[in-house]
Amino acid sequence: MINSHPKEEEAMALTLYGGQRTRASMPRWYMEEKGIAYNLVELDLQAKQHREPEFLAINPFGKLPALVDDSLQGPDGKPLQLFESGAILMHLAAHHSNDIQSEAERALTTQWLLFANATLAIALFVPSNREREFPRLMAELNQQLHPDRPLVGQQWGAADCAMQAYLAYLPLFFPDLDLSPYPAIQSLIATVQKRPAYRKAMGYVDA
Amino acid sequence: MINSHPKEEEAMALTLYGGQRTRASMPRWYMEEKGIAYNLVELDLQAKQHREPEFLAINPFGKLPALVDDSLQGPDGKPLQLFESGAILMHLAAHHSNDIQSEAERALTTQWLLFANATLAIALFVPSNREREFPRLMAELNQQLHPDRPLVGQQWGAADCAMQAYLAYLPLFFPDLDLSPYPAIQSLIATVQKRPAYRKAMGYVDA
Repeated sequence: MINSHPKEEEAMALTLYGGQRTRASMPRWYMEEKGIAYNLVELDLQAKQHREPEFLAINPFGKLPALVDDSLQGPDGKPLQLFESGAILMHLAAHHSNDIQSEAERALTTQWLLFANATLAIALFVPSNREREFPRLMAELNQQLHPDRPLVGQQWGAADCAMQAYLAYLPLFFPDLDLSPYPAIQSLIATVQKRPAYRKAMGYVDA
Repeated sequence: MINSHPKEEEAMALTLYGGQRTRASMPRWYMEEKGIAYNLVELDLQAKQHREPEFLAINPFGKLPALVDDSLQGPDGKPLQLFESGAILMHLAAHHSNDIQSEAERALTTQWLLFANATLAIALFVPSNREREFPRLMAELNQQLHPDRPLVGQQWGAADCAMQAYLAYLPLFFPDLDLSPYPAIQSLIATVQKRPAYRKAMGYVDA
């Protein structure tokens, strides 16, 4: 059984389903930065709560994160249910914040969300790509990224959240990876790791 | 040198940069199905045209496909330049077709684009995932997919294009993969492979 979130919070529009070491930390970081109110339901993956019927009714693929947005109607007339961290981020940016000011910014945000979740992830996790593709992408990113300059628009947004979250995973997942050829990325990671909203979303317990 | 597209076509809004065996076939298939006019610039990857300055000015990562949309202004005041096949598909659906009728349909289309390009691709191409993750995703997809029922909204759209294009790759990339446990997916692939727009986008020469 998944514990329902408390009754007094059920009127809130957004419920994020997450769990330890899932990409739920990405939309959660975004909502913390933007001051978007949300319920958090943390599933116990060890206990396979993400494979129980209650959660499969929300995401039939049983993957985390997922978002339920009571403020919008999905195709079945029920509140909108959404999976894929990148799609959740995009929806939050487009519908629950004022980050995106034009069709061009919308398209470019989608571009970076796909780049982070697909191209960068595949370059990292597919062993045959890691030596060939990954250094080329990182060298170019090292040129493009800067802690004070958003990837899209005038303020830190969903594109920055996805890209920075992925890059900050690098030292966690690949502790032997040498990032010294990419000083701008190293500096960006250090900046990200100090942000209180990031630390809260990642579950770090600060003194 | 990349051959410029003919002068008489330069007034067209959309230029797609592609090449053999790139994901350019996905947005191209979509534009063919929807009757969206476009220029196609095919780069010679063997000759490394995608690493030449002319193309790096369009996509600094040197990856195909990329789209230039003269009808929208990018952040630098020049026509919008976009990479990532999923982001190009989303932009075409949102800005150059009438597929998407609501915020919910927009969010769900983004969800399937990420699912195809990230989750499904990683399940396939990361060896450790192929045995564990891939069959679970395929079993659920086999329940959800149907040749006559779009994934989002009332008509075949960007979500169907991305998912169907990925699934139709399976027998090409993994000829030894047994798809018989997924009869609905097999039937969908057979239907896709007969579509004239798909065949044109894939570069099949029909009699």
